[in-house]
Amino acid sequence: MIKVGLVGGTGYTGVELLRILASHPQARLHTITSRADAGTPVAAMFPSLRGKLDLVFADPEGAPLDQCDVVFFATPHGVAMSHAPALVSAGIKVIDLAADFRLQDLKQWDKWYQLEHTARDLLAEAVYGLPEMNRDPIRTARVIGNPGCYATAVQLGFLPLIEAGVVDTSRLVADAKSGVSGAGRKSELGIMFSEVSDNFRAYGVSGHRHHPEMVQGLSKAAGRPVSLVFVPHLTPAIRGIHATLYASLTRDVDVQSLFEERFRDEPFVDVMPGGSHPDTRSVRGANTCRIAVHRPENGEVVVVLAIIDNLVKGASGQAVQNMNLMFGIDETTALDHPALMP
Amino acid sequence: MIKVGLVGGTGYTGVELLRILASHPQARLHTITSRADAGTPVAAMFPSLRGKLDLVFADPEGAPLDQCDVVFFATPHGVAMSHAPALVSAGIKVIDLAADFRLQDLKQWDKWYQLEHTARDLLAEAVYGLPEMNRDPIRTARVIGNPGCYATAVQLGFLPLIEAGVVDTSRLVADAKSGVSGAGRKSELGIMFSEVSDNFRAYGVSGHRHHPEMVQGLSKAAGRPVSLVFVPHLTPAIRGIHATLYASLTRDVDVQSLFEERFRDEPFVDVMPGGSHPDTRSVRGANTCRIAVHRPENGEVVVVLAIIDNLVKGASGQAVQNMNLMFGIDETTALDHPALMP
Amino acid sequence: MIKVGLVGGTGYTGVELLRILASHPQARLHTITSRADAGTPVAAMFPSLRGKLDLVFADPEGAPLDQCDVVFFATPHGVAMSHAPALVSAGIKVIDLAADFRLQDLKQWDKWYQLEHTARDLLAEAVYGLPEMNRDPIRTARVIGNPGCYATAVQLGFLPLIEAGVVDTSRLVADAKSGVSGAGRKSELGIMFSEVSDNFRAYGVSGHRHHPEMVQGLSKAAGRPVSLVFVPHLTPAIRGIHATLYASLTRDVDVQSLFEERFRDEPFVDVMPGGSHPDTRSVRGANTCRIAVHRPENGEVVVVLAIIDNLVKGASGQAVQNMNLMFGIDETTALDHPALMP
Amino acid sequence: MIKVGLVGGTGYTGVELLRILASHPQARLHTITSRADAGTPVAAMFPSLRGKLDLVFADPEGAPLDQCDVVFFATPHGVAMSHAPALVSAGIKVIDLAADFRLQDLKQWDKWYQLEHTARDLLAEAVYGLPEMNRDPIRTARVIGNPGCYATAVQLGFLPLIEAGVVDTSRLVADAKSGVSGAGRKSELGIMFSEVSDNFRAYGVSGHRHHPEMVQGLSKAAGRPVSLVFVPHLTPAIRGIHATLYASLTRDVDVQSLFEERFRDEPFVDVMPGGSHPDTRSVRGANTCRIAVHRPENGEVVVVLAIIDNLVKGASGQAVQNMNLMFGIDETTALDHPALMP
Repeated sequence: MIKVGLVGGTGYTGVELLRILASHPQARLHTITSRADAGTPVAAMFPSLRGKLDLVFADPEGAPLDQCDVVFFATPHGVAMSHAPALVSAGIKVIDLAADFRLQDLKQWDKWYQLEHTARDLLAEAVYGLPEMNRDPIRTARVIGNPGCYATAVQLGFLPLIEAGVVDTSRLVADAKSGVSGAGRKSELGIMFSEVSDNFRAYGVSGHRHHPEMVQGLSKAAGRPVSLVFVPHLTPAIRGIHATLYASLTRDVDVQSLFEERFRDEPFVDVMPGGSHPDTRSVRGANTCRIAVHRPENGEVVVVLAIIDNLVKGASGQAVQNMNLMFGIDETTALDHPALMP
Repeated sequence: MIKVGLVGGTGYTGVELLRILASHPQARLHTITSRADAGTPVAAMFPSLRGKLDLVFADPEGAPLDQCDVVFFATPHGVAMSHAPALVSAGIKVIDLAADFRLQDLKQWDKWYQLEHTARDLLAEAVYGLPEMNRDPIRTARVIGNPGCYATAVQLGFLPLIEAGVVDTSRLVADAKSGVSGAGRKSELGIMFSEVSDNFRAYGVSGHRHHPEMVQGLSKAAGRPVSLVFVPHLTPAIRGIHATLYASLTRDVDVQSLFEERFRDEPFVDVMPGGSHPDTRSVRGANTCRIAVHRPENGEVVVVLAIIDNLVKGASGQAVQNMNLMFGIDETTALDHPALMP
Repeated sequence: MIKVGLVGGTGYTGVELLRILASHPQARLHTITSRADAGTPVAAMFPSLRGKLDLVFADPEGAPLDQCDVVFFATPHGVAMSHAPALVSAGIKVIDLAADFRLQDLKQWDKWYQLEHTARDLLAEAVYGLPEMNRDPIRTARVIGNPGCYATAVQLGFLPLIEAGVVDTSRLVADAKSGVSGAGRKSELGIMFSEVSDNFRAYGVSGHRHHPEMVQGLSKAAGRPVSLVFVPHLTPAIRGIHATLYASLTRDVDVQSLFEERFRDEPFVDVMPGGSHPDTRSVRGANTCRIAVHRPENGEVVVVLAIIDNLVKGASGQAVQNMNLMFGIDETTALDHPALMP
Repeated sequence: MIKVGLVGGTGYTGVELLRILASHPQARLHTITSRADAGTPVAAMFPSLRGKLDLVFADPEGAPLDQCDVVFFATPHGVAMSHAPALVSAGIKVIDLAADFRLQDLKQWDKWYQLEHTARDLLAEAVYGLPEMNRDPIRTARVIGNPGCYATAVQLGFLPLIEAGVVDTSRLVADAKSGVSGAGRKSELGIMFSEVSDNFRAYGVSGHRHHPEMVQGLSKAAGRPVSLVFVPHLTPAIRGIHATLYASLTRDVDVQSLFEERFRDEPFVDVMPGGSHPDTRSVRGANTCRIAVHRPENGEVVVVLAIIDNLVKGASGQAVQNMNLMFGIDETTALDHPALMP
């Protein structure tokens, strides 16, 4: 039984991790911390967990994280890097759901996070936790930088085209739409119900923190720097990311077959039949990335539709997938329930 | 392994049953029928089930229902009563999610459904499938009338008060609000997104089919006829029923203790602490009925808030709970996952 | 041309007042204040007003409120009472959209607002701004306490029954549902999109600030104290209040005629035909209260459905209606546009 | 006073036209037809119009359309072309909100509508009713093809770039998102609340009827054929279109100034300050197209965000704007109310 620690369990990725772990037959939550809510029963904050989880939020100082086999960080960036070195030294695996161990280029880190990175050695060995890219390194990693939600959808959607070298990587476009839970569980005017409902808008068009993460992964796949325009939007839904990706083919290719073959053995990537339009709700609560590929009017532009649940394959589900790989158990454990539809 | 048949799997209660059964370790879907969609793979209609279910909708005529141990009917009223007698004669259990086996008073049946009841003998022995009321009879039943969604919430919320004889049963009020999936998976102008979203309305105030079902159950619990005003409303949410119940106390009583004791051993009824206001989302996808009890200004009126997911405890989850009881397996099997929140 | 001042224009009632006044042919916004946002153009905060309004938020200290004919307070409670005496002395009319001038019983004020009332003399002469109750006193009032949104719907729905003396006023029930904008434009965890969407819940069942306001008005209409149980709920819509009201008839009466006659000459109360179920969206953006009356199974309980737009008839529209009355112009000026549907 | 006829007033564009005309001081609805609902009072179908409109739906056969000055067709395609020739011969202006008079290329008409065009002469003289492109021809037109909602947003957003000849017109991308009312007022499974809510999806990626309309207009502006990839999406909102447009600059240019100058005198196009992200709700119920322009990382790709209310500037508001122009009255009449926000 894997003993799990969770630092920062009061956000949406935290409570989603609790939901998934509650059904995990080989892992058990050992401790959960929250400085602000120490002493509060978890189920008092999240009534959906009443009767499912008896733990109380522990103060980070006294929490028995050192008794765990793995510690997840569902905290804002900057927290994991300050605690990970000691945990790793003690033989404890670390999976960070924030950005501390995602970007290998420290200049990009500095630019977007404006914070000195205090765990550079560990960053150097950290593995980017996208199993469809890095399954083997993940198995033996000590530290995982769990991918961002936008980055998961955008990379999975572009990968087959870029790895096969069939698109012009100097002008990729990712038009992405996210449900509101991607903004986190916090009180901000811009994500209040009356501000977001019956509304639609773009944000961060001039620049977004998730951009360098995508460029890093796609450039690695391409073997050279790629150029990507990324425009995120907020849609009035709780969960779901829909990435609409545009690339120009440089040679004729059967894109449907290309995608089907690339993901044939992937348990969590579903390539739909030609002509499909995936609904984000078809993965609500599930760890699946569903993809459809189109070539409008059989032209040179290929349009990829890639959807995920931002809190599952885009965060906590993928984190458990990584944990399963790191501990040598079936990758799909606790992650094989169908989506909740409607 | 219980062999399950499902007649009419193209509605929301049908697909919800499929979702729940997909995680059931002791039951396996053997056949699923749909006259209109015979030949269509189930996962083509419901992409959320891609990779989870390989069956094709079978024509009802040739479907191997007679090889099943239990057959669920997720069909409009009138269908189950025409097939149930033959199935029961063949030793197959029947669980009807529609109304055919709910009302024992045939005059009420005639009034609300305007259809001759063709399985009156079977109706006489049918058990109303609310385990919190009828657990023992359900275990040995051959035919179950699975409760309606409104009726489940309203009855569970009133039961402790009525069984204890502490309220005036001549003037009960149930003001209930339902998510739109309760109206079923069908195209009707009144439940279109643009008609329902950012809107709220009552319906059926002058009379509703679910009223006699509630009155039947509550009268049985009271030992005499009760009088109930029931007003249903449509709220712009997919799932969830919130019943707000009003009754006048006839003597002073600790209502919180009354509810806690009544449901102490119930695996799927959660009485919240005094002063609570349950959210419908806290049971989204879960088989739980969550209840809070209030006495505003410590007056004579007791206000009960009872919530369920209309598709789970209000339909398919309760149906599986009944199946579990009928086959002598753990009542909570496949029904113990936490709610999906947010 | 009426010169209008607005104190506190950054909330939803404030911006709604701006929207309505923008189309008012006999009133012009002269100054608008906001301490926190002084110097910001109003249209920068509310892009919906770009091109419609050129004003900048002024600091309350230097704002030329004394040049106005009327000043609206769209502020939290406690603000209007500190400024109103000086304005009234200067001959300026005051309309407070908050609670400072609603409750005549200071014990109730103290209990619910826990703040000393500093304008007691003015409170004594203040008129409760529900035109359907107090049209004549409003015409000559110097200070108006504009009704709360719940109180508007609940009082209009009960008035005909209570004034006619045909219901038992010792056991009134008001089950009310509000869109989220009723909670104001502020960042609070409980009204975030991801917390409210696809959800439904009651709140304040044990006690709510709007309760004494309703009881005050209904008791006055009854000529004796009434007893009312009031349960508010939050529904995932931006605008709209739906009050479902329950009362027991003490004698047989044609309730439809009773309502039609009571409101025959009211420009903003629409009694629908018997059997109707009003949609809140049918008054979205409009100053109308739409009402339908039912007697389920022709029993003794009468059920009234009363809907308003909480920001219009429940706040800013009613405030302009009061202003029109106070300045002797057509009561419907700027308030006669149809609702926005869908 | 302009006498207005409306053929087909039971859809969303129809009722929106009624809402706008209700406030028009120089136009009056003379007759409204609906074959299916002849005899029904308009306000019985649309309670939002109770007290605002006393007309009854007339049967198309006997309706006094010949007494009108202008007739709007808010009907499915194919209807206007069968009635327009007779009306025009009688000196009556025709404004078609459907597609009959939009496409000048009959091959495109045949391909997408698979219906013989029966008013080819009239089509030849019909004017495409986008005032920002065709203001003068509209003034004297006898027949207007009112633009589609997607086409309005996409063309307005691309026009300044294309007219100035500063982008590569061989690879334009329009990623557009629409609220559900764009699909019309009809019962279809795909637009039911429980199918659309908390969901997001693309549709028609391989081809969409609105594509040739956009290409026609943009090619005319460019002076040569343009190539456009258009991907529409359905977002869970009632109203609103958000077009996110991508084009590659062929030379360096101050795009902000370019847009500001192009639309300086346009009453219904609002170019926002640099760095803005328009919300669709900022035009809810208003006839405005709001636009923001970005150049991410100052690269060669320009990203235009263009929003409209699909039922107003994307349909009925634009139709009234065209009527105002055709009758020589102020273009903004009845169209200058601020948006409904929130």
